[in-house]
Amino acid sequence: MNQIESLERLINFFSNLPGVGTKTAQRYAYYVLNKDADYVRDFANAIVEANKNIHYCANCGNFTDKDICDICATRPNKVICVVKEPKDVLAIEKVKDFKGQYHVLHGTLSPLDNRGPDDIKIKELLTRVQQGGVEEIIMATNPDVEGEATAMYISKLLKPFGIKITRLSQGVSMGSDIEYADEVTLARALEDRKEI
Amino acid sequence: MNQIESLERLINFFSNLPGVGTKTAQRYAYYVLNKDADYVRDFANAIVEANKNIHYCANCGNFTDKDICDICATRPNKVICVVKEPKDVLAIEKVKDFKGQYHVLHGTLSPLDNRGPDDIKIKELLTRVQQGGVEEIIMATNPDVEGEATAMYISKLLKPFGIKITRLSQGVSMGSDIEYADEVTLARALEDRKEI
Repeated sequence: MNQIESLERLINFFSNLPGVGTKTAQRYAYYVLNKDADYVRDFANAIVEANKNIHYCANCGNFTDKDICDICATRPNKVICVVKEPKDVLAIEKVKDFKGQYHVLHGTLSPLDNRGPDDIKIKELLTRVQQGGVEEIIMATNPDVEGEATAMYISKLLKPFGIKITRLSQGVSMGSDIEYADEVTLARALEDRKEI
Repeated sequence: MNQIESLERLINFFSNLPGVGTKTAQRYAYYVLNKDADYVRDFANAIVEANKNIHYCANCGNFTDKDICDICATRPNKVICVVKEPKDVLAIEKVKDFKGQYHVLHGTLSPLDNRGPDDIKIKELLTRVQQGGVEEIIMATNPDVEGEATAMYISKLLKPFGIKITRLSQGVSMGSDIEYADEVTLARALEDRKEI
């Protein structure tokens, strides 16, 4: 049986979404087929509108539908938290404790993938620091090889400005089992142990 | 931080897809934001077009973009395989051994969910049988309580027509472990054992 062309096409688009295989894409497509025309038109519009209206904040690189995002517009730039991707901003915002601005790098340094300092938004971070007022940079890139390398690289670049540069602490996760923690994490947790 | 409105809207639509939670919907939305406008317009069009062009085959109830689907148009109606949903047709088509037509019920009988014989396409199946030419009905509804009940109900309805009514065989799955097979399946496999 040849699949119906427009169904095939929709399944293809869905299976391009991150982490979606053919079976899941099929489920999504069937879901769309079973919805009424109004709903589906709204869904399609939401996709086009979001893509059209949303772009990077001119200051921090996070997604926004304005020139400068709400965070940059309303918070002081004393502390800047540097993250890899926009979704990391959401994660840190959930903590509700951080009241500074962000800087989204849109990637990490990765020689293997041919991604150097010019391919991620490091220059923009330097400009923000040069404009003054920044007292601390928190490096919140992922605790993996690339994230670590990027954090080290940026901290060396920023040294001359004499501002405080910090890194998220590393150790065992809350609620996790020591038994299942990997040895690198455990080693770090031991090394950075705190008096109680 | 208030999320951006059009992003929020898109995430909502994605999280309505079957089996998609907020985190996954967010990933999908960010994927859309990062795509260029042309691709996104095509994606949106694919959704609207599929929903507009595809409807149920007037004969078997499977999805098609014509009046009568390719399977019904090209194959004899001697054997009809009755399934619950369109995706079951895809699964059986993959076997490539079945050369008959299908009948999609679009559901199973389920008193708990208030789904009776009039809510699924049983009447349409009866009409097809009454029109003549059908020699065998294969009941390929799922081997669960509702699927079994539906198969029994339909087979009783079709008894008066004197056609052969069969059910997919049940037993242990190929490549599975006897150790992990549930007892109902094992009991059925023992009962239906075959001489080799």
